[in-house]
Amino acid sequence: MAVTAALIIIGNEVLSGRTRDANLQFIARRLVDIGIRLAEARVIADTEDAIIAAVNQCRAAHDFVFTTGGIGPTHDDITSRSVARAFGVALVRDPVALALLEKHYEGRDLNDARLKMADIPEGAGLIHNPVSKAPGFQIENVFVLAGVPSIMEAMFEGIKERLTGGEKVASITITAFIPEGDLAGPFGRLQEEFPAVEMGSYPFFRGGRLGSSLVLRSADGPALAAAAESLRAMIRDLGSEPEEDGEDGD
Amino acid sequence: MAVTAALIIIGNEVLSGRTRDANLQFIARRLVDIGIRLAEARVIADTEDAIIAAVNQCRAAHDFVFTTGGIGPTHDDITSRSVARAFGVALVRDPVALALLEKHYEGRDLNDARLKMADIPEGAGLIHNPVSKAPGFQIENVFVLAGVPSIMEAMFEGIKERLTGGEKVASITITAFIPEGDLAGPFGRLQEEFPAVEMGSYPFFRGGRLGSSLVLRSADGPALAAAAESLRAMIRDLGSEPEEDGEDGD
Repeated sequence: MAVTAALIIIGNEVLSGRTRDANLQFIARRLVDIGIRLAEARVIADTEDAIIAAVNQCRAAHDFVFTTGGIGPTHDDITSRSVARAFGVALVRDPVALALLEKHYEGRDLNDARLKMADIPEGAGLIHNPVSKAPGFQIENVFVLAGVPSIMEAMFEGIKERLTGGEKVASITITAFIPEGDLAGPFGRLQEEFPAVEMGSYPFFRGGRLGSSLVLRSADGPALAAAAESLRAMIRDLGSEPEEDGEDGD
Repeated sequence: MAVTAALIIIGNEVLSGRTRDANLQFIARRLVDIGIRLAEARVIADTEDAIIAAVNQCRAAHDFVFTTGGIGPTHDDITSRSVARAFGVALVRDPVALALLEKHYEGRDLNDARLKMADIPEGAGLIHNPVSKAPGFQIENVFVLAGVPSIMEAMFEGIKERLTGGEKVASITITAFIPEGDLAGPFGRLQEEFPAVEMGSYPFFRGGRLGSSLVLRSADGPALAAAAESLRAMIRDLGSEPEEDGEDGD
């Protein structure tokens, strides 16, 4: 049984095109390493209704849910309050979070806006923020992280031991300068031959030439290796030379 | 009444972290120009169940739905078939699409895999693909586009006249080297003073200094201008100097 996760990106700034999300790719890659399949990601607006709906749908459907964004001090930071409502619990000032903020802002202005960052849903546990101290939190299977990539990444490193994955899926990417339409037939037959290996094809243009990136994924190492060997032979049969994409070979 | 859209990114390669999506930001920005609000975006797996569920949820909830990915010739390209099932219609070989492919592949191998790219849901209209000819399609309020950014962008330019937007939302971005926590109080009061203007704050680090990007959005031009003027005054009151971000000032 695959262990699955959903990512909820809370961000009007992504939906307006002002910023390009960077968190999805980081989290996706880390989850692959842990043996968790990212089954879906949603970019939603900074509204309470949207957050509550997405959190409740995703936490029922997946083993783990991650949210990014909306836990800062400004009025548009409504994630903590909305997640509390999604769980039907109160938002409470956490004494440990408060102490962290008091220490961090010692001698500076720990105003009401900043104090809001110590408010978490009742029953949630803190997620350490080594960068700017204001913590994230975990409630049941939902992990609420910052939106700023450097902070989100630091928080994620701290929660990895709480994430239990399933079988690790390894992948091999083989590219060839063969247009997809010329390899689709034999590639489809290869997929039928190796049902335990998930096979995807992604076209590319490089140096004015059309090619295909062929990605094989499986938790079954011997099947993956055998499928890759057959794929290399298939590419040579089609008169081309397979190239390996090292970064995916882990 | 705002005109809204959803984007469905069909892509295991995005969920695995292998590739970073580039289509969301392009479509988001184009929709802003047209007066359509991108209300949500979903990245889903290349499975029939996931595509059918996302298409049917999104087309019921929004004025327009765009999908990207999965309309090529390989076995993992299942978007057309899945969208047909979402609408409960047959997948049929379109004569115009077939003629386009016959012309494009004249003298080359127009095999079964490539012919699959002429199959669209019954009742759908074609979307022109000036790059590689294999068309996208529109069925009711759902626009099915290619996943390769250059092809998707060319397709999008061709459907713009079919997209009727509502009031155009303009935005002004003002940045200042003030930490969010120091401006959250007055910024929240500014939001209360201008309910017709949506105000968001995004922290940044630049040259070792902490600052905030403050984004104002509204379809009400005079309210937007007045709110921006008040925001500039607010920043000066806080002892800093407002900087304008030209690219958002359209």
